[in-house]
Amino acid sequence: MSPFPFTGLSAFPLTPASADGVVDTKVLQRLLDRILQADVQSIGLLGSTGVYMYLSREERRRAVAAAVEVVRGKIPLMVGVGTLRTDEAQALARDAAAERADALLLAPVSYTPLTDEEVFRHFEAVAGATDLPLCIYNNPSTTHFSFSPDLLQRLSGLARIHAVKMPLPKDMDFPGEMKRLRAGVPPEFKIGYSGDWGACGALLAGADAWYSVVAGLFPKPAAALTRAASQGDVAESRRLDALFAPLWDLFKTHGSLRVVYAAAGLLGLTDALPPRPILPLSSDLLPAIETAIGGLEG
Amino acid sequence: MSPFPFTGLSAFPLTPASADGVVDTKVLQRLLDRILQADVQSIGLLGSTGVYMYLSREERRRAVAAAVEVVRGKIPLMVGVGTLRTDEAQALARDAAAERADALLLAPVSYTPLTDEEVFRHFEAVAGATDLPLCIYNNPSTTHFSFSPDLLQRLSGLARIHAVKMPLPKDMDFPGEMKRLRAGVPPEFKIGYSGDWGACGALLAGADAWYSVVAGLFPKPAAALTRAASQGDVAESRRLDALFAPLWDLFKTHGSLRVVYAAAGLLGLTDALPPRPILPLSSDLLPAIETAIGGLEG
Repeated sequence: MSPFPFTGLSAFPLTPASADGVVDTKVLQRLLDRILQADVQSIGLLGSTGVYMYLSREERRRAVAAAVEVVRGKIPLMVGVGTLRTDEAQALARDAAAERADALLLAPVSYTPLTDEEVFRHFEAVAGATDLPLCIYNNPSTTHFSFSPDLLQRLSGLARIHAVKMPLPKDMDFPGEMKRLRAGVPPEFKIGYSGDWGACGALLAGADAWYSVVAGLFPKPAAALTRAASQGDVAESRRLDALFAPLWDLFKTHGSLRVVYAAAGLLGLTDALPPRPILPLSSDLLPAIETAIGGLEG
Repeated sequence: MSPFPFTGLSAFPLTPASADGVVDTKVLQRLLDRILQADVQSIGLLGSTGVYMYLSREERRRAVAAAVEVVRGKIPLMVGVGTLRTDEAQALARDAAAERADALLLAPVSYTPLTDEEVFRHFEAVAGATDLPLCIYNNPSTTHFSFSPDLLQRLSGLARIHAVKMPLPKDMDFPGEMKRLRAGVPPEFKIGYSGDWGACGALLAGADAWYSVVAGLFPKPAAALTRAASQGDVAESRRLDALFAPLWDLFKTHGSLRVVYAAAGLLGLTDALPPRPILPLSSDLLPAIETAIGGLEG
């Protein structure tokens, strides 16, 4: 087992919690067990799908401890430690290290818009808080900060910063974007993508990793797609990607977070709802979700 | 004294705090005393300039308690209670009410992008948590949510929602925007603006309020500008606005938050820094800030 969860398929489960934000660790462990049944290369705990920004420090630590119990020694566990304040992100990183997570995922969460220098210093401070390897979480749709290639290059020179999780490029030109990025970072620096509906294209173009929402609930077909695309089997990966197409459409329209909560409910895995103000999807939409997930192996 | 702080000049002070987020209540009270020396109609505590999103619930409550000691019975005190979770925003609203604040200011702070229905339900829940009047904090540059006129109209129909704090319109067409907004809201609903460099134009066009960063440090010239513009004295308001022009340029380039921290330091009011990851401005910029504030009465 590599301690570096920055290649292959990384599955991002939701974090089931009560209406007042208490994590249901038993259900979380069941979701993780389900992921471990498939050929998945790492877990991305407390990502955006894992509603990390809506959970207290204490609940985030409880989630990490519960996950380590189930996952440790099997595949690497990466933990999201983003938050607004630098000192609190450092504290979350230390908590994750103390609970024996394998890696950190850090997003430049912002309220006041941040400058490049502020983000650089923030990452430097958090990467320096533990010995764990760190992945840059580049997710402008939630953080409202976009990393320039120059800033990624600068960050890739810091000790312990080993990877980036990219959003889908606007023009979907994965080869072009990866070529530009790779020109500036060390050869061992890993470039992966999130945005499930672009994963097939990203992996076929040579992305190092797929940071996947859907793999949190459907790890087996996501693993099959990852395997086919990583081996360059275009026909098979397109065929597998097409099985997900109705789900991708729902993700694009309603947000993947709301859809995976509804899907987890339909699968009988949890009746947890997203944290308010985020609302569960209207019951009118459940038949379409049921149809979209009908052909996917659990 | 009107208990409704939704007309005239509302001054938004910074919240001085230590590097680990402990509010310096003595310095906060000195900043408030300074504001009370001027003809200011209300205080906007814990706004964006008051770094509310970077302070814990406990520290936000301490700041409110300290402000009430100084302000209560003089002018109304409005308190920002925005946060990501609905239940936590309700708790912050109850804290503000328990400390005897006069009104609430609520921004739809987001991480996962929110739908109109989610924001409506969030506001309904927070407005229902106390008896205090509430102002909608419409600030897309920090919350990444834009209120449509339809949503504002719907919210203006809820009990206790009495006002909106608008960002500057992109085309700076204040009369047009206010006409469109006023067509949908009750006649007593108040429409005010933030974005200090547009305040003169907004007030001349009949805006009900100026929610002002600069008035947190320079309440007297901001009050003079508010008075002149509210009375329709175009020449005098343009003259007063021009005194601020070098400061507006710095606000636009570096963000008003970073500039007011530097200005407060230059005035000897506090050596508090913004919360990391936000960095203090480089000392290279201090001479320009000193020049920009040189002509402004404290």
